[in-house]
Amino acid sequence: MKNKFYQYIQNLQDQICKGLEDVDGISKFREDIWERPEGGGGRTRVIEKGQVFEKGGVNISAVHGKLPDTMQKMFGVGEADFFACGLSLVIHPKNPMVPTVHANWRYFEMYDENGNIINQWFGGGQDLTPYYLFEEDAIHFHHACKTACDKHNPEFYPNYKKKCDDYFWNAHRNEARGVGGLFFDYLKVTDAMTMEDWYNFVTEVGNSFLEAYVPIVEKRKNLEYTTAQRTWQEIRRGRYVEFNLVHDKGTLFGLKTNGRIESILMSLPPHVQWVYDHHPEKGSEEEKLISVLQKPKEWA
Amino acid sequence: MKNKFYQYIQNLQDQICKGLEDVDGISKFREDIWERPEGGGGRTRVIEKGQVFEKGGVNISAVHGKLPDTMQKMFGVGEADFFACGLSLVIHPKNPMVPTVHANWRYFEMYDENGNIINQWFGGGQDLTPYYLFEEDAIHFHHACKTACDKHNPEFYPNYKKKCDDYFWNAHRNEARGVGGLFFDYLKVTDAMTMEDWYNFVTEVGNSFLEAYVPIVEKRKNLEYTTAQRTWQEIRRGRYVEFNLVHDKGTLFGLKTNGRIESILMSLPPHVQWVYDHHPEKGSEEEKLISVLQKPKEWA
Repeated sequence: MKNKFYQYIQNLQDQICKGLEDVDGISKFREDIWERPEGGGGRTRVIEKGQVFEKGGVNISAVHGKLPDTMQKMFGVGEADFFACGLSLVIHPKNPMVPTVHANWRYFEMYDENGNIINQWFGGGQDLTPYYLFEEDAIHFHHACKTACDKHNPEFYPNYKKKCDDYFWNAHRNEARGVGGLFFDYLKVTDAMTMEDWYNFVTEVGNSFLEAYVPIVEKRKNLEYTTAQRTWQEIRRGRYVEFNLVHDKGTLFGLKTNGRIESILMSLPPHVQWVYDHHPEKGSEEEKLISVLQKPKEWA
Repeated sequence: MKNKFYQYIQNLQDQICKGLEDVDGISKFREDIWERPEGGGGRTRVIEKGQVFEKGGVNISAVHGKLPDTMQKMFGVGEADFFACGLSLVIHPKNPMVPTVHANWRYFEMYDENGNIINQWFGGGQDLTPYYLFEEDAIHFHHACKTACDKHNPEFYPNYKKKCDDYFWNAHRNEARGVGGLFFDYLKVTDAMTMEDWYNFVTEVGNSFLEAYVPIVEKRKNLEYTTAQRTWQEIRRGRYVEFNLVHDKGTLFGLKTNGRIESILMSLPPHVQWVYDHHPEKGSEEEKLISVLQKPKEWA
């Protein structure tokens, strides 16, 4: 399974980078291969200063070795060997009318002293963070998520949609990071699902990514915008930074386990503003976005 | 003691705001009075878009009530009543040749069920974060710190200078946030020091702030700078954000105990950049700064 899934995310990285480069039309991803001293490594691909994408990363990694202390605590286990691989992406478009997107698909194995698998699971998801809310875009994105889920189980979409709203909650701001999507973790063997079934589900979601996101980018990338709208985008990106540095388990986990800092923090937006006590005008598009973020909606 | 110290920080807030407004020459601090539902409140003063200061806050607060769960854990105690007051400031100048400064002075009391003080202490410090290193500025700042300390005990400066270097260590970047200054906490009664002695020490440091910082601002505020230097400042401000949101106990404590978000996060810089895998040129002024941050120096 680990080889199969790693092969899958390698191909998916190629596909997604190619798809995004085609949309951008000018900029290409640069690639950095890195090694983890304790075992494994990754292939980081970053795009910057594009025509459409101001900054973004589509990274894969596969790491293994002794389970670090912090992970032992997290999983409530003692010493063990582990393997983990995944694809993580965050894309920050230049135009404030185009939403930021994040996605991640990952697989984890833990071993006993004889190298037998004692635990294995999939995790991941994808979610959208608009700066201006086009309801049809949120609906399109959630429909793509739902379509992928429904092929496997009609309960998946409502479950993982709710988990996404719960996870990407910027608690100190009392608002969601964005309009959500899917979030799932610890997908393990059950009576109903083998690991093969979960593989099929997770890769179905992975395969839905470009179709979920690219049509939105195409529709909005040439819209005109004002300096004030760009400022709003940069202020909202500040909330994205706050979520990733204060609440996001993946980021904090990476920072505290000696991950490759530049690959972890490629998720941070290129230009960001913090303005003291900023509030959008009553009845404005900006205020409309906030009110939706404060109370997550059903989109599909 | 609590009334005396609170009176002191109220006056100090007035003095510092006045001193900084005089340096800026154009912008004035705006004031927001806020109340904490559980008891107490604060007086937040923020300056934005000044001639010299792009963004900054000089805030006081005095809060009391039942010790929140998170604080009980932090101090290793059970239920208790508490009182805490302090002044916190962060100033982000516009010109990259002028360093950012942070300072904080605070006092804490804990009570038994009859309202008797069972524990009390002072904490605080002040530290400097340059974007371009003028060694004489770091020396001036540290001399002001040392002069204030030496009036009370010759061991204070070396001790609290080291604590500052240790505390403001951006561990995931393996570098200091800035060139340091002073940091002290849990200053309690000892054989050598009464609370009155600590009051005299902490207020001595508070009184040294303007003399430690303003001459540096005056010296650098009219220096010319390039767009590239401004970009460097914005990238380095990213590290400031990373420290405050990932490592700073005060910020995280505030975010997790329902503090007033806008008063806590006034510390975040106005314009910030994250550039993937940015490294300054060999032998440049930017690289010189980094090498000093990676290995804290003695300045006084």
